[in-house]
Amino acid sequence: MAGRFALAPGAISGTLSAFLMFRSSLAFLAVFSCATISAHADEGMWLYSAPPREQIKATYGFELTDAWLEHLMKASVRFNSGGSGSFVSGDGLVITNHHVGADSLQKMGTAEKNYLRDGFYAQTPADEVKCNDLELNVLQSIEDVTARVNAAIPVGATGEAAALARRKITAEIEKESREKTGLRSDVVTLYQGGQYHLYRFKRYTDIRLVFAPEMQAAFYGGDPDNFEYPRYCLDVCLFRVYENGQPVKPEHYLKWSERGAQDGELTFVSGHPGRTSRLLTTPELEYLRDVSFPATLDLLKRREVLLTAWSGRSQENARRARDDLFSLQNSRKVRDGGQAALQDPTFMGEKIAKEKSFKHQLADQPEGKEALAAFDRIADAQKAIRAVAQRYRLLESGLGLNAESFRIARELLRAGDEHPKPNGERLKEFTDARRESFELELFSDKPIYADYEILTLADSLTDLVEQLGYHDPLVQRVLAGKSPRARAAELINDTQVRDVAFRKQLYEGGATAVTAAKDPMIELARLVDPEARTLRKTVEAQDEIKQQAQAAIGRARFAVEGTANYPDATFTLRLSYGAVKGYEENGQHVPAMTNFAGLYARSAEQNNQPPFDLPPRWVARKAALDLTTPFNFVSTADIIGGNSGSPVVNRAGEFVGIIFDGNIYSLVADFGYEDKLSRALSVHSAGILEALRKIYEVPALADELVKGHR
Amino acid sequence: MAGRFALAPGAISGTLSAFLMFRSSLAFLAVFSCATISAHADEGMWLYSAPPREQIKATYGFELTDAWLEHLMKASVRFNSGGSGSFVSGDGLVITNHHVGADSLQKMGTAEKNYLRDGFYAQTPADEVKCNDLELNVLQSIEDVTARVNAAIPVGATGEAAALARRKITAEIEKESREKTGLRSDVVTLYQGGQYHLYRFKRYTDIRLVFAPEMQAAFYGGDPDNFEYPRYCLDVCLFRVYENGQPVKPEHYLKWSERGAQDGELTFVSGHPGRTSRLLTTPELEYLRDVSFPATLDLLKRREVLLTAWSGRSQENARRARDDLFSLQNSRKVRDGGQAALQDPTFMGEKIAKEKSFKHQLADQPEGKEALAAFDRIADAQKAIRAVAQRYRLLESGLGLNAESFRIARELLRAGDEHPKPNGERLKEFTDARRESFELELFSDKPIYADYEILTLADSLTDLVEQLGYHDPLVQRVLAGKSPRARAAELINDTQVRDVAFRKQLYEGGATAVTAAKDPMIELARLVDPEARTLRKTVEAQDEIKQQAQAAIGRARFAVEGTANYPDATFTLRLSYGAVKGYEENGQHVPAMTNFAGLYARSAEQNNQPPFDLPPRWVARKAALDLTTPFNFVSTADIIGGNSGSPVVNRAGEFVGIIFDGNIYSLVADFGYEDKLSRALSVHSAGILEALRKIYEVPALADELVKGHR
Repeated sequence: MAGRFALAPGAISGTLSAFLMFRSSLAFLAVFSCATISAHADEGMWLYSAPPREQIKATYGFELTDAWLEHLMKASVRFNSGGSGSFVSGDGLVITNHHVGADSLQKMGTAEKNYLRDGFYAQTPADEVKCNDLELNVLQSIEDVTARVNAAIPVGATGEAAALARRKITAEIEKESREKTGLRSDVVTLYQGGQYHLYRFKRYTDIRLVFAPEMQAAFYGGDPDNFEYPRYCLDVCLFRVYENGQPVKPEHYLKWSERGAQDGELTFVSGHPGRTSRLLTTPELEYLRDVSFPATLDLLKRREVLLTAWSGRSQENARRARDDLFSLQNSRKVRDGGQAALQDPTFMGEKIAKEKSFKHQLADQPEGKEALAAFDRIADAQKAIRAVAQRYRLLESGLGLNAESFRIARELLRAGDEHPKPNGERLKEFTDARRESFELELFSDKPIYADYEILTLADSLTDLVEQLGYHDPLVQRVLAGKSPRARAAELINDTQVRDVAFRKQLYEGGATAVTAAKDPMIELARLVDPEARTLRKTVEAQDEIKQQAQAAIGRARFAVEGTANYPDATFTLRLSYGAVKGYEENGQHVPAMTNFAGLYARSAEQNNQPPFDLPPRWVARKAALDLTTPFNFVSTADIIGGNSGSPVVNRAGEFVGIIFDGNIYSLVADFGYEDKLSRALSVHSAGILEALRKIYEVPALADELVKGHR
Repeated sequence: MAGRFALAPGAISGTLSAFLMFRSSLAFLAVFSCATISAHADEGMWLYSAPPREQIKATYGFELTDAWLEHLMKASVRFNSGGSGSFVSGDGLVITNHHVGADSLQKMGTAEKNYLRDGFYAQTPADEVKCNDLELNVLQSIEDVTARVNAAIPVGATGEAAALARRKITAEIEKESREKTGLRSDVVTLYQGGQYHLYRFKRYTDIRLVFAPEMQAAFYGGDPDNFEYPRYCLDVCLFRVYENGQPVKPEHYLKWSERGAQDGELTFVSGHPGRTSRLLTTPELEYLRDVSFPATLDLLKRREVLLTAWSGRSQENARRARDDLFSLQNSRKVRDGGQAALQDPTFMGEKIAKEKSFKHQLADQPEGKEALAAFDRIADAQKAIRAVAQRYRLLESGLGLNAESFRIARELLRAGDEHPKPNGERLKEFTDARRESFELELFSDKPIYADYEILTLADSLTDLVEQLGYHDPLVQRVLAGKSPRARAAELINDTQVRDVAFRKQLYEGGATAVTAAKDPMIELARLVDPEARTLRKTVEAQDEIKQQAQAAIGRARFAVEGTANYPDATFTLRLSYGAVKGYEENGQHVPAMTNFAGLYARSAEQNNQPPFDLPPRWVARKAALDLTTPFNFVSTADIIGGNSGSPVVNRAGEFVGIIFDGNIYSLVADFGYEDKLSRALSVHSAGILEALRKIYEVPALADELVKGHR
């Protein structure tokens, strides 16, 4: 699950295809402009390879040392399901948000045992429950490979040719690094293609659940309080990382601060912001406002209603849909917030004015002409993307064929077709470097429920008919003379792809085995694939044009505006910072901290009705608590989806809290930083300890956190 | 509120503008074909002036007499808020569904007293609570005025000219009848304009609440169980009708059957089905499938998510939004069901084949050529409507400006402009015949909450921008340089139209007073009005063309198929009939009846979690009940939205139950009757008595029902 400040794109359907959906709408852009814009004090999601030493020194008088940075970097953990976390003990304990761990909690659950809803604690190491398909990454090094990548692009190559060349050299660099170091190696595009960095990660796949509170404590206030403040959420979850059947002993882990974050103090956030779009050009922003956001919001709301209604029919339905439902509600709030900014003439007016002024400056520069032309190329590319956007979303992103079974079927089909190709010419997800992660997900034995699959597939086929038209030839072939409901039932009941052994057999047998299987869902994927691939090719070619144009603009921007900047977010490790600090809302002061007393007050004012009801344990153990203990707090750190679970540390590098959300005003963060009203929300380290000791009565776990080992 | 089988259109926003929204999409059509289609046994929503005497005699051996019919007709009551009901005591007691009464319960509620949620019982006549703006109608007579209407249309007149002439003669007939009889007089278009009937109603406006159960008992199982069966709902509500400060003594009221409906027996339903579309031509059905339903469903789901999220923030929010929210969920299910039928190649294939075969028959008929040409005219008109449909919905139906304040503002503006015109030339809702009802609603003092208004207006403005485009000149003028949220807040905070005295002053002062007020919301309505009126003119002209074409087809159909037919529903009184009868679903028999034991079992299997929790009173009084008492039952009667609250009577004309819903298979009823799976749902008369006596302990009320007087 990608919840709240977990990576929002994954929220749509949690897999690669949904991730791709956003490729055209929220491109990975870059370069923050500092010269013409009055920079805000605590702005920025900084690269560990280019940290904001001067800014922090100037504002807070604190010196970032290399050792301090390396320690925090290597204690930071990426959850490939879409969030962040950190090592908090020498015995491999990793803390993240409950809503980041939710994906795993959901998958390990059954009709009898609901880990997600009821929580869990492993009394002994033997009780720790292994996750189905969770992968964690820990960044080990960053290497600038810009020159090597650029050298591999033939002079004058554009569009598809350049993309192909870049994919080839990227795959080569990744493969070479992986073979040499044994580490997961990803080439990351930064600064709109102005820079390419090789990120090397330690990769962990044996992850076991140690502790999770009840959903109701983690997500207290539910969707209504999501993105609101004050808040009272114990949004944490603890896993232990294993290697070769033993807990890992990480060299770097964060010391736990029993005192925790203090009002007004400087704090740092080390995590994996998913993506931002702070330097989008006007046509790109207009595309989001006019095409992408409306379509995505329609879809999110459609699915939210579908799952809400279905969940209401039985407790078991609710359990099966819960995780997806929360993701949908979360994404919906995020995009409603973003759309509000895009439709705000003040916000957009400022963006447009800045762009205009920048273009004006460009006119006098040597690189100006090229950059100005690049703006036009972006506008044209965006127009070309707009022309295919609807069919791309439905067919290639698969939103018109929304079922896990379809996604698996297509992966099997494409694996058979792609693997025989040279590594550099494959679709990105089939390259050798991604193979292990890809297979881990493809062969996951997480439960896939046929009734749920029929529900989502039938609804998305209905949507497909509505959007492309009943008489569209491909639609007619997809439906095969049936109604969407009947067709969905037939496909889901007849396919074998929910059987992991069947998947393995086809995957290993390649295209011949896939064709021989005559599986109806795979045949559906085959039917859609020619157009889907064509659409993807078109969009990727235009994205490539945009990327090159953006790189040209980026170079010109450097020339005009200087070097003190951070790139847009890329779901790679970044350092943010800011003060613990309240804010003024409608003339009222909202304090930085909440405490346990506030939780009980909120519950009482809502008559203890869901989602404001307290778990029984919290009612029973109230008297044991020190109600003045801090629970949640806000800071001015610059965060976005993907930062969920990021550790918050103080100057001493101690763990003082964990990011879990932003307030409602933070929803413009995709397009710009704001520090008057916008705040990052964290769970306080002292509050976590208090709950572990007094509510959950797990002293061994609390002691491990405080002592740093078992 | 228009809930479940209340009139669905009102569900969108409950006022005239939403009602108009459907004018172009679900036109009032007609004439059921009997010759070429194998008629189903219990099909039809029959006119009281042309009841199905032969069919009932043939199938059930029962003779409908004039006296029997007149008694049932005059005991039947129309709720102008969108449902049906009946007199059940000689002291003016009227029974309807809780969800039909909900609109009134909501309006009389306050933050302190929640009638809708908590229920109510008036111990004494003095305790009975007057409704804010409820109007009941009781049909007194039906007169065929077809000849007079047709004579007033100039020969050869089409489109707007014919519409104007018909509006003029209609207004004239209505006015004349009203002046002569003192009765509300409506000319009703039947059989696609093949017939015009004058319906005269007694009109009651002093309606007082006597009894309502808790919402949780009335709507047990909530949205999840809505349109499902088996069910366990006490969906009833009792009002007393007053005139001159005294309870009315109706000459006709239904005798209560203590035994109630019996499995297998013939029953009758007397109520006000809102509209059906059973003879739509293929282009019209395609318009619904491709344009109207997708747009409406997007809107319904958008609003459902909006209100659900807002309701979650506080108990008071939930109370304010509850009624609208249930209406939205209800409408969404209805349309999801309808869209499933329209996207089903079998269902649509049958419709298309029948139309083709009918056209084939026409080729040999003298009237055939004209009717065939009429089919083409409908196709062209539908195309013209399609071209303006989006702007029409947003601007004239007001879906892009969704706030009670906007609707009131526009009514004030238009009242000022329309009233000086001759009666026959006004927009329909401003004609003299509708004046009293119009004013009753306009001057209603029901509470309108500013925060709720801002919420709905901001969201619909966001939708307006998305749909018409940010750069649309009218959109730019509507937003006036603000974001949708800021603009909504400004408009709602600054307008005075929520003040009833202000409304009266402007209404009485006419256009001059309206202009002088410079009210920002009225000025917004003025800004939108020129285009809105143009759009309405276009749509009404095309509807008129369709209506005339449909009349031509209707005449030809009579010639081909004979006379034994019923017109499409028109929210006027109809008689349906059918057997109390279970059905087979996925190979399992679903019995016709449920009982109280089933209610407690359903609650237990859902762990008594909302919406399956039992009201405290129902838990406490369980032991007092005879658990084998019938609670809900199903029959094959042909019903649709608007039939909510219709009495179900046996051969003796006794009240044996009350319609409150249809099962999920009944959702195709808009387009056709089905009797294998489709069922009408009722509350059983014995179950109602048992609950009144044992759960609510209101023996006086139960006795009044049984004895027929206090």
